[in-house]
Amino acid sequence: MLARMEKNRRIVLARRPVGAPVASDMRLEEVALPAIGDGQLLLKTLFLSLDPYMRGRMSEDRSYSPPIALGDPIVGRTISRVAESRNRDYAVGDVVMANSGWQTHFVSDGTALRKLDMQHPSLALGVLGSAGFAAYIGLLEIGKPKPGETVAVAAATGGVGATVVQLARLRGAHTIAIAGGADKVAYARDVLRADVALDHRAPDFAAQLKAAAPNGIDVYFENVGGDVLHAVVPLLNDRARIPICGVIAWYNLTEAPAGPDFSPSLVRTILRRRALMEGFVVSDWLHKQEQFFADMTKWIDDGAIVYREHVVDGFENAPAAFIGLLDGKNFGKVVVKVAD
Amino acid sequence: MLARMEKNRRIVLARRPVGAPVASDMRLEEVALPAIGDGQLLLKTLFLSLDPYMRGRMSEDRSYSPPIALGDPIVGRTISRVAESRNRDYAVGDVVMANSGWQTHFVSDGTALRKLDMQHPSLALGVLGSAGFAAYIGLLEIGKPKPGETVAVAAATGGVGATVVQLARLRGAHTIAIAGGADKVAYARDVLRADVALDHRAPDFAAQLKAAAPNGIDVYFENVGGDVLHAVVPLLNDRARIPICGVIAWYNLTEAPAGPDFSPSLVRTILRRRALMEGFVVSDWLHKQEQFFADMTKWIDDGAIVYREHVVDGFENAPAAFIGLLDGKNFGKVVVKVAD
Repeated sequence: MLARMEKNRRIVLARRPVGAPVASDMRLEEVALPAIGDGQLLLKTLFLSLDPYMRGRMSEDRSYSPPIALGDPIVGRTISRVAESRNRDYAVGDVVMANSGWQTHFVSDGTALRKLDMQHPSLALGVLGSAGFAAYIGLLEIGKPKPGETVAVAAATGGVGATVVQLARLRGAHTIAIAGGADKVAYARDVLRADVALDHRAPDFAAQLKAAAPNGIDVYFENVGGDVLHAVVPLLNDRARIPICGVIAWYNLTEAPAGPDFSPSLVRTILRRRALMEGFVVSDWLHKQEQFFADMTKWIDDGAIVYREHVVDGFENAPAAFIGLLDGKNFGKVVVKVAD
Repeated sequence: MLARMEKNRRIVLARRPVGAPVASDMRLEEVALPAIGDGQLLLKTLFLSLDPYMRGRMSEDRSYSPPIALGDPIVGRTISRVAESRNRDYAVGDVVMANSGWQTHFVSDGTALRKLDMQHPSLALGVLGSAGFAAYIGLLEIGKPKPGETVAVAAATGGVGATVVQLARLRGAHTIAIAGGADKVAYARDVLRADVALDHRAPDFAAQLKAAAPNGIDVYFENVGGDVLHAVVPLLNDRARIPICGVIAWYNLTEAPAGPDFSPSLVRTILRRRALMEGFVVSDWLHKQEQFFADMTKWIDDGAIVYREHVVDGFENAPAAFIGLLDGKNFGKVVVKVAD
């Protein structure tokens, strides 16, 4: 049993962000550790996943999940270790995937946990977790690239995009990785082995993209929105597919941007090209999760898919890391190391 | 054999329209009737279909079909009678559906024709033709409304929309018809029997739509674009489906409209609601055509589906009728009566 002197440290939503979140929208608190009841466990967080979708949950907008209440811990997937157990299914020391949120401890009744048995448990937050699963579902179930088709991937070195690039290449597609900055572009080309890697910050990015897609674009994996989408739309082929996983460039918008209005061009292109645009969240695809886990484990073991983690050390650094993530400052899947 | 004194009258594309087409973009010509060769037929146009998609074909933009060449007759589906035949499959007097375009005569080799045997052959251009087929495919194959779901239909008294409204009602959906003007709204409510019919020109249209859809919108059949789409998007439910059949409000755009930019709101909603937006053209769905024809004939015979034609008398009036169609001046499916 933990010494009851230990406190639960948690980061709560202090204020709903207006536009880009700032540090004072979040607040670090210490509260007493609760005692656990029959059937319950006390989880101690080892790693916390930081993901762009959390920005949406901080707002009051209608979304696929309810907003976080003010004063509540920010939501999030964690890798946790069982510190105390009054549940026969879990023993002290077990490592599980949980949804503890942004806090160092969490009392669980044992539901919605998944035991992990791997050397690098933080992978379960990235390439083997929801980021990898989003890449797998979005690309393979919605994008469905065929060999020889052209796939463009935005945020191509991020937690989701890096896996999309590699899956597209494994499927035999001509793969165009789009990232921001020379180091990410080099990584996408040399490590992820995209056929072409482009920097969306280049002044002539749209022309570069056109030159990189001489046969047009069949699948655009949307992670970003904004100018990258604008450059992709004119290149879409007949029956193009656009799985929408995120629109990080637009999460911090407080109102519709000034014009021109791009929506007529977007919708007319979807019509003319008989294209498909579909939003998805992985929680709708849990029936594919075991297959994903089996496929991805094999690809990682084979070396067909590589991964990169951006590990932030220390729970108290989560807010700054999250703000940086929304600004593209991460390089790879962001996880916060909370405890050893 | 026709007297060779008869001429072929045709309306050709004189100039590519900039924005809304004007009369001088089209030109009426008379040319000699060609002689027919072995295996050919001379078709005499009885009815010409006018449809919004023709606007797209007048531009040089990349679309699902090549643009009409300057000086060529404008494309279009026709109901025609065989006036001369050197083809064993067709006899003089047969009535066929053809693609003669905007002209009084056409020489065919007998391919891509469909013999018609019905009392009102012009129906084959409307409720039993591509307009009805577009309604059937877009609503039933892409929209897929379930009983009790809410379906909103724009341009609800037009050639496509009127059938969509009735099919949605037949499927047991709460059906919201959107049209422009009191007479069309009354028709949608009283004849098409929509559950609610709204005038998109009302200053408080968005609020009326919200009140008419207390459970949100599950299927939006897009025929229009513009302000109707803007009002629909905030009401979309989880897993909403948006078949895109046309965007008549936007066909005449010469450049992106002034802001604000609606595209972030549109794409974010597709993401949050895990919605699907899909463009379609009926030529991709020909494998469903016989089923459509059987279903629709039965529904018309039963009185379950009614239809309204807007018959324009006289071939020379086609340009003005087409300009009016793009401006919403028609009421029902527009056909031009070319000959008795």
